[in-house]
Amino acid sequence: MNVHLEQLQAWVQAQSLDVAYISNYTNINYFTGFFSDPEERITGLFVFPDQDPFLFVPALSIEAVKKAGWPYGVAGYLDHEQPFALIAAEIKKRVANPIKWGIEKDDLAVFKFEAIMRQFPTATFPADASRFIETLQLIKTPDEIAKMEEAGRQADRAFAAGFKALCTGITEQAVVAEIEYAMMKEGVMHMSFDTIVQAGIDAADPHGGPEATAVQPGELVLFDLGTDNHGYMSDATRTVAFGAGVSAKAQEIHKVCLEAQLTAQAAVRPGLRASDLDKIARDIIEKAGYGEYFNHRLGHGIGMSTHEFPSIMAGNDMELKPGMCFSIEPGIYIPGVAGVRIEDCVHVTATGCEPFTHTSKDYTVIN
Amino acid sequence: MNVHLEQLQAWVQAQSLDVAYISNYTNINYFTGFFSDPEERITGLFVFPDQDPFLFVPALSIEAVKKAGWPYGVAGYLDHEQPFALIAAEIKKRVANPIKWGIEKDDLAVFKFEAIMRQFPTATFPADASRFIETLQLIKTPDEIAKMEEAGRQADRAFAAGFKALCTGITEQAVVAEIEYAMMKEGVMHMSFDTIVQAGIDAADPHGGPEATAVQPGELVLFDLGTDNHGYMSDATRTVAFGAGVSAKAQEIHKVCLEAQLTAQAAVRPGLRASDLDKIARDIIEKAGYGEYFNHRLGHGIGMSTHEFPSIMAGNDMELKPGMCFSIEPGIYIPGVAGVRIEDCVHVTATGCEPFTHTSKDYTVIN
Repeated sequence: MNVHLEQLQAWVQAQSLDVAYISNYTNINYFTGFFSDPEERITGLFVFPDQDPFLFVPALSIEAVKKAGWPYGVAGYLDHEQPFALIAAEIKKRVANPIKWGIEKDDLAVFKFEAIMRQFPTATFPADASRFIETLQLIKTPDEIAKMEEAGRQADRAFAAGFKALCTGITEQAVVAEIEYAMMKEGVMHMSFDTIVQAGIDAADPHGGPEATAVQPGELVLFDLGTDNHGYMSDATRTVAFGAGVSAKAQEIHKVCLEAQLTAQAAVRPGLRASDLDKIARDIIEKAGYGEYFNHRLGHGIGMSTHEFPSIMAGNDMELKPGMCFSIEPGIYIPGVAGVRIEDCVHVTATGCEPFTHTSKDYTVIN
Repeated sequence: MNVHLEQLQAWVQAQSLDVAYISNYTNINYFTGFFSDPEERITGLFVFPDQDPFLFVPALSIEAVKKAGWPYGVAGYLDHEQPFALIAAEIKKRVANPIKWGIEKDDLAVFKFEAIMRQFPTATFPADASRFIETLQLIKTPDEIAKMEEAGRQADRAFAAGFKALCTGITEQAVVAEIEYAMMKEGVMHMSFDTIVQAGIDAADPHGGPEATAVQPGELVLFDLGTDNHGYMSDATRTVAFGAGVSAKAQEIHKVCLEAQLTAQAAVRPGLRASDLDKIARDIIEKAGYGEYFNHRLGHGIGMSTHEFPSIMAGNDMELKPGMCFSIEPGIYIPGVAGVRIEDCVHVTATGCEPFTHTSKDYTVIN
């Protein structure tokens, strides 16, 4: 049994549950090594305190479950069959009348919840597996960190492709096309999110995407991208100068943002509170007079999802621990002027942290 | 108020609801014209029987809501605020104590459901908006069909890019890279699903994806792809011969599959049952002796999602009506030999149907 699945079973025991139903397909991958987005179909992992777990999947996925090396039971259903009746039958082979259920409250849709209650009218739901799993996923294993390091190397190559594509008149969208094309040609078929390329004042909107507008010499260009390496994500941001003529103001906010990013990254150590790490970066930007233009948290956790725990922000007093993985991404967005964000994701070590991406963060001019 | 939103409000009235909570972000787009995947954040559309609706979004999305032309109320929340307390306050401005709620049971996660119940302890949930919306979305308006026609034209250009990329030694993944690169260069930034290119025996797995294996002359190559045109999807499949030397068996299954596809497409008319349409295609494949190798339904509905109602399969006796949009995609998959699928999505007209894609379905050899 893999270590994560062992931990889940231990939680089921500790909570005195009769069964836990894991419904989120990313989390099913985390516990089983089997990945499939079932869309409207039903997939579930069912875990018991003292028996082997089983997977329930659409019948057409049974072969893929076996290929993924899943050593326990698997049951399937055809499109015309009633999945929850079949799930109930499988469960009843193991536990005649499960009363205490653990479910993922962040994921489980009401229709599935009601279907369970129809099959098991005496069921109760005392335990939220979502809260347990987000805590479990806080600390990555060495194997997980190795996969994220590979994703980081892919992201570094993606930056190189993007910088190489910059030329007068190319649109933001066309730069994205070059980046994702370069990744796919090397077999990286999924980015971890839609690649962002924003030039000039477009970068002042931290929630915008690439437009059909052309990059102009003298603009800062922001690249925010990442890849999906066998289920583990990278995420990094660089802001570079395209050609000469970048305004003094834009250069200054790059300098301030970089100082905030480097100082925060150098400050990471076990025992530091997430909120204090946010404050280290924020203080530098505020002291430089740009506090109002840094309007988001310093960072977010990353792993099999691009946004998970821990959130690096005011109000989160969680202490950092070795194996935690998160972004450090200060930004300064001045509407109508320019936008800068600089981001590495890191994993906490015994004495500090190591970034997953290594592309230079220094002020760089691309000609 | 757009026609879909009017229909939703009429449903809220007809069901004697106090409020409906639309939580699925694709459906929010359908009713409001505002699109945003909020990931872990909270977005909701709240609709009342006799007052204007309002949108609730993360604060950073309020400007985007206004840009999208939403003429009614919008409220936001910051990351450190409690969204369901703010939602409750907004609702109570309009209805002091809403008892009867409509919710999307296919979408709403249990944690949101419980949050609503905490804010409104006397709430009841008599109406499932998921069932209403899937029925509403069955019939597309002329404006929606126009957007799907444009998505179809994009898919035709994607096929052309894929056929052009075929050459000895190129991998399936590299062909996908060329297709998506060509689309992005023309500003089509999202495919409607991961593009599938499968050559030779790989195509005999209807649920596989592109591999790092090279395409060989004499193989059939299956392309299944689509684009996302401002929220409306295309989806089509062609299977072509790469070079000379395709086996007689592979050519024969292409011929049978094409006859099934063309016959079914020509048979579509208002009043025909979905199950009967499936049978028209299936009978041809069974009569030719390949019935066991056609192991999925004939088609699925399409619109703002690639899989919606109506399902074209045995057991679904729904009668076709003008404005319904769905795929017609028979396939024959012989393990170790070859796989063929041929697919157009169509919209039903007063007298028949029109396909969204026009790339030739005839047996075509690419040299």
